[in-house]
Amino acid sequence: MKLATLNDGTRDGQLVVVARDLKHAHLADGIAPTLQAALDDWAFIAPQLNQLYAQLNGGRGQRSFDFDPARCMAPLPRAFQWVDGSAYVNHVELVRKARKAEMPESFWEDPLMYQGGSDDFLGPHDDIVLAQEEWGIDFEAEVAVVTGDVPMGSTPDQALQQIRLLMLANDVSLRNLIAAELAKGFGFVQSKPATSFSPVAVTPDELGDAWLGGKIHLPLRSTWNGKLVGQPHAGADMVFNFPQLIAHLCKTRNARAGTIVGSGTVSNKDAGRGYSCIAEKRCLEMIEDGVASTPFMLFGDTIKIEMLDGAGKSVFGAIAQSVKQAEATKLR
Amino acid sequence: MKLATLNDGTRDGQLVVVARDLKHAHLADGIAPTLQAALDDWAFIAPQLNQLYAQLNGGRGQRSFDFDPARCMAPLPRAFQWVDGSAYVNHVELVRKARKAEMPESFWEDPLMYQGGSDDFLGPHDDIVLAQEEWGIDFEAEVAVVTGDVPMGSTPDQALQQIRLLMLANDVSLRNLIAAELAKGFGFVQSKPATSFSPVAVTPDELGDAWLGGKIHLPLRSTWNGKLVGQPHAGADMVFNFPQLIAHLCKTRNARAGTIVGSGTVSNKDAGRGYSCIAEKRCLEMIEDGVASTPFMLFGDTIKIEMLDGAGKSVFGAIAQSVKQAEATKLR
Repeated sequence: MKLATLNDGTRDGQLVVVARDLKHAHLADGIAPTLQAALDDWAFIAPQLNQLYAQLNGGRGQRSFDFDPARCMAPLPRAFQWVDGSAYVNHVELVRKARKAEMPESFWEDPLMYQGGSDDFLGPHDDIVLAQEEWGIDFEAEVAVVTGDVPMGSTPDQALQQIRLLMLANDVSLRNLIAAELAKGFGFVQSKPATSFSPVAVTPDELGDAWLGGKIHLPLRSTWNGKLVGQPHAGADMVFNFPQLIAHLCKTRNARAGTIVGSGTVSNKDAGRGYSCIAEKRCLEMIEDGVASTPFMLFGDTIKIEMLDGAGKSVFGAIAQSVKQAEATKLR
Repeated sequence: MKLATLNDGTRDGQLVVVARDLKHAHLADGIAPTLQAALDDWAFIAPQLNQLYAQLNGGRGQRSFDFDPARCMAPLPRAFQWVDGSAYVNHVELVRKARKAEMPESFWEDPLMYQGGSDDFLGPHDDIVLAQEEWGIDFEAEVAVVTGDVPMGSTPDQALQQIRLLMLANDVSLRNLIAAELAKGFGFVQSKPATSFSPVAVTPDELGDAWLGGKIHLPLRSTWNGKLVGQPHAGADMVFNFPQLIAHLCKTRNARAGTIVGSGTVSNKDAGRGYSCIAEKRCLEMIEDGVASTPFMLFGDTIKIEMLDGAGKSVFGAIAQSVKQAEATKLR
């Protein structure tokens, strides 16, 4: 099934069930007020949502309405946990190569992962509002999962059973703040502003054969200022699958319902598939030409991130955002 | 006023108002079901809670009951954000000195801060359950604040106005996992298991003159296996006050209501005040003797963290935890 959260002026929005073709939706407030509430009691709530989903797809939604992604918040407008792996190690290797640094061999066996801020996510069509272009604004197109309760010490097989939903993410990064912040050794705080997510979160069964081995086997399309710049395959070159990423997270602690785990920037070894973040393009330029010529995002730039199934239909709806200067800074 | 969350079997527990002397409590379910709900609508909810608090202190709580910290969850059993600063730079300097590394001068002006997991906090009396002693289990006694909504770009003065509550924290750390994890460059995931918090969160006015300049001016007492090992002054040697830490967090994003900001391990330059984490003791031993002789925590160890006011009364109640081996690991 497909779920979304409409902006109704509250912090957590209103849960809706969305038809498979993303054309119609139906309020789910009779079942669960919010997506977090549904995840908190999934075994009881999910079958009821699924029933409504079947009715909606069968044209039997009594009070269905047109689904408008522009009215969506992130499926979880705020979450209790957001961690992001770097499962496409090719991307990590490229970044290191560009700055002439060796990548430790252990990166192929021990996942990179960071704990991200989860209190203030952006909706799929929300502006990316930031004070300064000089911070090096970049998009990062990713796939992500939402989990149920995963106890400490769970194996990847156990973690797989707790994957409830799949989404797309734009893990916005401020490239010119990253080096200095990571040098301090404590990970990202200022260099990772609010992340946005796709209009719709879907249960893994929606992907059919494209959900296999804990990976999503479809290309992820990034369109920057109207130009398709990347369509790497999310199933190819993913060195750690989602169950492995979740098990990594849970080595020393429980992960509770509503935890979001990201894949990191989707990246293929075949550079012909393009890029899912500008940093990668710049790394390739550095390696080839000795200089990075593609600039980061400017105020007014747009980014669209979408995944189409084998039949060319949008699975999650599109993340479609503009970069905008923060008002306070304009006034200064 | 003083607030706590009782374990009622739900994920977010039940909000109660606690008398100033921590002897009695009163359900606040007629006002707000949970502390997060109160923080989400603080301007409307806080005056009502305050009225109940006044009644309770005046012996006029109609249905008050004995307050038992053992029934408490963390004031926020799960939160949308938990970040932890390293405001006592003395501690950071010691750690570096022990491993013969220079501390960058910038650490005195630019706060260290990490994004922590916030989906599964421990209550003040919950066991610290972990699989292996070999991970190097350590306590970290800290002070922390809970904020309202703090917009991106807020100044420290603006951030100060959004400090809603104060608490104590035990930011449990796995010392033997930290070096390898931080070397990967993305901060803490596995080396920071679940954090616990004091039974009670209090509004800043409860501290009177001890809340000054965005710092808590009282000693923080850590008692390890029944022995008082530290009572450093939380107001002394705090290089960044809470408003500065919050402003650091908000440089590139909003912090939303219920954000918890920790101080980092409380540490004084005067080593005679003892220590708030074993790592610091071991650093002093390394510097003096060339070898760290105090071991980390073992299964069965206890840690008590408390803050007394000028009259010797407990302000927040005590964090009082035991370290326990995870069942699954025992069975192997």
